[in-house]
Amino acid sequence: MKNTFGQSLAVTVFGESHGEMIGTVIDGIAPGIPVDTENIKRRLALRRPSGKISTSRREEDEFSIVSGVYQGYTTGTPVCILIPNKNTKSSDYSELADKPRPGHADYTATCKYHGFQDPRGGGHFSGRITAPIVAAAALIEPALRARGIFVATHISSLYGISDREFSDYTLDASILSEKTFPVLSQESEERMRSAIESAAEEGDSVGGILESVIYGLPSGLGDPYFDSLESTISHAVFSVPGIKGVEFGSGFGFASLKGSAANDAIMTDGERIYTSTNHNGGINGGISNGMPVILRAAVKPTPSIFKQQNTVSLEKMENTTLTISGRHDPAIIHRARAVIDATLILAVADALTVRYGTDYLGVNDNNN
Amino acid sequence: MKNTFGQSLAVTVFGESHGEMIGTVIDGIAPGIPVDTENIKRRLALRRPSGKISTSRREEDEFSIVSGVYQGYTTGTPVCILIPNKNTKSSDYSELADKPRPGHADYTATCKYHGFQDPRGGGHFSGRITAPIVAAAALIEPALRARGIFVATHISSLYGISDREFSDYTLDASILSEKTFPVLSQESEERMRSAIESAAEEGDSVGGILESVIYGLPSGLGDPYFDSLESTISHAVFSVPGIKGVEFGSGFGFASLKGSAANDAIMTDGERIYTSTNHNGGINGGISNGMPVILRAAVKPTPSIFKQQNTVSLEKMENTTLTISGRHDPAIIHRARAVIDATLILAVADALTVRYGTDYLGVNDNNN
Amino acid sequence: MKNTFGQSLAVTVFGESHGEMIGTVIDGIAPGIPVDTENIKRRLALRRPSGKISTSRREEDEFSIVSGVYQGYTTGTPVCILIPNKNTKSSDYSELADKPRPGHADYTATCKYHGFQDPRGGGHFSGRITAPIVAAAALIEPALRARGIFVATHISSLYGISDREFSDYTLDASILSEKTFPVLSQESEERMRSAIESAAEEGDSVGGILESVIYGLPSGLGDPYFDSLESTISHAVFSVPGIKGVEFGSGFGFASLKGSAANDAIMTDGERIYTSTNHNGGINGGISNGMPVILRAAVKPTPSIFKQQNTVSLEKMENTTLTISGRHDPAIIHRARAVIDATLILAVADALTVRYGTDYLGVNDNNN
Amino acid sequence: MKNTFGQSLAVTVFGESHGEMIGTVIDGIAPGIPVDTENIKRRLALRRPSGKISTSRREEDEFSIVSGVYQGYTTGTPVCILIPNKNTKSSDYSELADKPRPGHADYTATCKYHGFQDPRGGGHFSGRITAPIVAAAALIEPALRARGIFVATHISSLYGISDREFSDYTLDASILSEKTFPVLSQESEERMRSAIESAAEEGDSVGGILESVIYGLPSGLGDPYFDSLESTISHAVFSVPGIKGVEFGSGFGFASLKGSAANDAIMTDGERIYTSTNHNGGINGGISNGMPVILRAAVKPTPSIFKQQNTVSLEKMENTTLTISGRHDPAIIHRARAVIDATLILAVADALTVRYGTDYLGVNDNNN
Repeated sequence: MKNTFGQSLAVTVFGESHGEMIGTVIDGIAPGIPVDTENIKRRLALRRPSGKISTSRREEDEFSIVSGVYQGYTTGTPVCILIPNKNTKSSDYSELADKPRPGHADYTATCKYHGFQDPRGGGHFSGRITAPIVAAAALIEPALRARGIFVATHISSLYGISDREFSDYTLDASILSEKTFPVLSQESEERMRSAIESAAEEGDSVGGILESVIYGLPSGLGDPYFDSLESTISHAVFSVPGIKGVEFGSGFGFASLKGSAANDAIMTDGERIYTSTNHNGGINGGISNGMPVILRAAVKPTPSIFKQQNTVSLEKMENTTLTISGRHDPAIIHRARAVIDATLILAVADALTVRYGTDYLGVNDNNN
Repeated sequence: MKNTFGQSLAVTVFGESHGEMIGTVIDGIAPGIPVDTENIKRRLALRRPSGKISTSRREEDEFSIVSGVYQGYTTGTPVCILIPNKNTKSSDYSELADKPRPGHADYTATCKYHGFQDPRGGGHFSGRITAPIVAAAALIEPALRARGIFVATHISSLYGISDREFSDYTLDASILSEKTFPVLSQESEERMRSAIESAAEEGDSVGGILESVIYGLPSGLGDPYFDSLESTISHAVFSVPGIKGVEFGSGFGFASLKGSAANDAIMTDGERIYTSTNHNGGINGGISNGMPVILRAAVKPTPSIFKQQNTVSLEKMENTTLTISGRHDPAIIHRARAVIDATLILAVADALTVRYGTDYLGVNDNNN
Repeated sequence: MKNTFGQSLAVTVFGESHGEMIGTVIDGIAPGIPVDTENIKRRLALRRPSGKISTSRREEDEFSIVSGVYQGYTTGTPVCILIPNKNTKSSDYSELADKPRPGHADYTATCKYHGFQDPRGGGHFSGRITAPIVAAAALIEPALRARGIFVATHISSLYGISDREFSDYTLDASILSEKTFPVLSQESEERMRSAIESAAEEGDSVGGILESVIYGLPSGLGDPYFDSLESTISHAVFSVPGIKGVEFGSGFGFASLKGSAANDAIMTDGERIYTSTNHNGGINGGISNGMPVILRAAVKPTPSIFKQQNTVSLEKMENTTLTISGRHDPAIIHRARAVIDATLILAVADALTVRYGTDYLGVNDNNN
Repeated sequence: MKNTFGQSLAVTVFGESHGEMIGTVIDGIAPGIPVDTENIKRRLALRRPSGKISTSRREEDEFSIVSGVYQGYTTGTPVCILIPNKNTKSSDYSELADKPRPGHADYTATCKYHGFQDPRGGGHFSGRITAPIVAAAALIEPALRARGIFVATHISSLYGISDREFSDYTLDASILSEKTFPVLSQESEERMRSAIESAAEEGDSVGGILESVIYGLPSGLGDPYFDSLESTISHAVFSVPGIKGVEFGSGFGFASLKGSAANDAIMTDGERIYTSTNHNGGINGGISNGMPVILRAAVKPTPSIFKQQNTVSLEKMENTTLTISGRHDPAIIHRARAVIDATLILAVADALTVRYGTDYLGVNDNNN
């Protein structure tokens, strides 16, 4: 449904980079979820630019929840969260209506919206529109935690520099929740930061790979065709700007494995069932198996670079060049982390709600 | 919607491997599409096992279209295609109800369906259920071709052996349409076939990577959030059994590119707009840009191997071993090609129908 | 979704009156529902024509369940039910492609399908296509009964002749379940039958009003906007051919009531909450209140009459006349009863599944 | 989808009567629709209380469009319209959390939301939440008018007093668009107003019937099962608080007609096709036939009356009485007119968009 995700717990986003407000409506949410505004602030802060590896635009992300919450709990009716746009400099973007930026959505927006789109700051395509997604997920997150479910994401690779692998998911999640630059190894973090700074100095940008875990997910979620758990999760993740690849478990690495190495042996300790390895990333036949869901998302380098690029004047229909000015990020991967986490929360919350019903995530559910 | 894909042109699949029939219902299809049963046969044949690199189960895939077609054309009402199951040997599967096969959906099916699922031949999880998906797409395919749109897929990599890259999409598509083992380079094909045969001899299996092109797609398809074209295509592709990764354009390769190398310069010849490279795989900001859409899907090795494996007796809740017998494929990647092509057709046909309306794919549309 | 009803438990119908088969796919159904084929036969029999108040076409409605059922229980995967068409006489309909029958869908089908529709026997618009809806609902019905929920419908009025009102819902439902002509008062039944026969003698037809109860529905089902329980139930009921009005509780009678007479006083016996009257038909603010849901549906007279009628030759674009021959019903209201019951079952089953999750209707649900 | 209506052009509402803001998000709207804020103001004014036949709460309905509009046109991205709540008196409602008001949603809200709902002023169930629906539709309305489509609604009956029938739809629509009390006959209006005033004096309330026309709708809209045009329109209309019946054309009057009187003869003047009568209300077989769509909706008397009523103390689970104070409407039917018009606009705009694609309602569509 276009700007909506979710079949039972549905999240809609709206807004433009330089419009009056951006926001989200969360419909189908269980009543009785305690609203943790500090968690929303914390999650939004993880998405915000900071330091010299980010754009100099400073967004405050003051948000207000204008419906669906009463006396500190969700009511069960739609929750609308609004985030006003404050720090906007529209003059930077005047040239772009005619000259689409390579790697950006400027040209495709014109194809789709016939020139009626708001071009200021990327309009609806701006990464800024991911803030409401983060806010919506942050509101839902405590309800997942109450069920023992959490998500965590680190930069597993940036311009060829690798982080260490996840070891203890709970501990690593706790480490990552504190970091605006989500890398597990201190040494890797320093090398990555310096790669970003050096790209920034060249007026260039870098991409990387985000690796995520969804921990504590019950088995039995997802459908064989067409709503496999991989399908619904990737649907959510691929809606994040700049994501160009998603893989689960061994993912593309399966291409060089034999079945005997790829299969995860099924084991029991007499009480629960698990697998000895997790090549399948917690999903078999489209359905969760109770193991941690592991996925990786490829983030392309920020297309906003300061080098001169070839493009076209749409009005004159002739080739020309473009040099982008303004405020931009030499890397968005660390900020994208918060958005990937958010889309995972949305995908999981919806899958749970479809399977267990609309009250499942509320604190007053019978199972609690 | 569980076993349905598509918001406007919706395809539903049903059936079990050893049930009476499997099939599909196509709803929202335009009236006036000429029905090419030869194309359905041809596409089904590409999915069928053949030769020593496949299971010895021989499925005839005789299909009948029992509704929605009149005098050779789609009527606009739902098309139901039925495929009877004939060559079924259910005795092979008796042990599996208790001992789930590693890498298969046996255990997750039990989690989801509480043991009520049909275990014979993998039931609803059998790769056989992809035949109706192929049939549905093959019925729609001529309508896309009439609009200048086609899809083609080759095995770009199998157990470390690479095919040559696409060069001329139209020519390569024509080559691939004739081949049950879809590889562009003759030499690569031989090496891949022999890798499969050698895995088969060991009782093992191999996986690989399928690379696809969607050619001729108009610009302007897809939505920024959450129905990006990557989202809806990956949603469809990840529903194919065994797919564990999907990437567009440079995909995971973006992680080691700088923005200046990753951006596709925008060009014009005065008449149309194109990009000099296609790192973005034909999609920017979730919306098609008119360039060929390029994607790759990771196919895991067939989990049905003949080596002894560790698993669990669900009844006794204790560790045990399992040796699978029966008829199985040492590789499914060449057969999966037909299914990937099919899901791409479904994803594109739906995106076109959402944007241009329900009559768009019919021959009597005003634009024709 | 066009030919599909339901957001979580979704039923799709397909087929044409004189096609090879008609049928339905039920997706999202809980695993573990015992399949009662006798109930499906019984429900189909209630929809079938019989006696001199019906068409002389005799349909056997032999059905087969080809997927989604194993060892007598639903598996949780899609259930496909097929009903072959046997007694078809296509020669009766040759003139109708050019001359649309007044009151029928012939002309609107041409508008929508541009002439590609199957005209034989009304094609997809034939009342015959309601047989799969009845079959789908009859398969689900025992799961509702296991939860204490049932539906029942009688002809409350036919060409000005009224039945007695519901008195004891359980008893009346039991009476109605045995009757092919569902009227509670013996005297009313005789007068209604004779009104139909006399219309038939004149080559004419009659309509009436069906009144239904949904009994045992838990409170809390439905949504304020836009999926009020009235919205989703009426959505299902208005898809039955010939239905032109739906009202709940006092319905149009509210127009001459004052609020003091219309409000239902809320009462308790210390254990449960109920209302002293039921003007609101079991629904307040779009949400069930635990009282029986009461609704009435207006059924228009069968448009197939044998009198000469004015119509148009579409080919010549000129006025002409038409006299319909063939086999037709002078009244369909008694047969429509089975279809209304079916749509109520579908609407309620979906609402329950959305609220309580996909396992709710299965026998293995934890609440059982 | 709960608080969302529409499959392609989807409108979501949010908010509570005494919350900070109420609003709507319109997703899937065509780019290039000129935004007429005066029309939104005018439509909102028609819904607002006024004079002594309404509540004394005075809502200003100042709205702001915070996204999806740029330089006076829709951009094609989601439009969010916000309406702040200003004139709220929450102290009036303190007793109601324990004692549900008869005829209201207080009790069902508790059943659904387990007591977490916002009880102030009816919360999400307040008629006030219809203001965003009116605003959303008013934004879309000019796009329908540009296609020659309009809607109009009058009070055809109030507490037994009838208005004259529609005669000239265009003229009558123009008359009604000016009137806050939408009655065509001056004499009927006076009698209706005095019936309302006299009910108000008694502390009571009255209901009635709204009759609507959708004029200029192209033929071919709607689907046979389950998205008949009656289904989707009634789905929208029944979501309006207080609506308990919907009928199309002769509706419940069909119950006393014979087929020969009920069928609408099909005619041509050589250029277009029409019917001599319009008993079917512009819809056959679930699909529009090009004639005006005629429907009537039953509006129950406002449940907020000032007489003492029987209810229950939910806390003590014992019978008690309740006398409502505060500000309330003795009739809402005249205000409901604006909401019915709005739901018709939403239903029609979505049906058109599903059929003709997402650009259809934009001014830059090729057909314009």
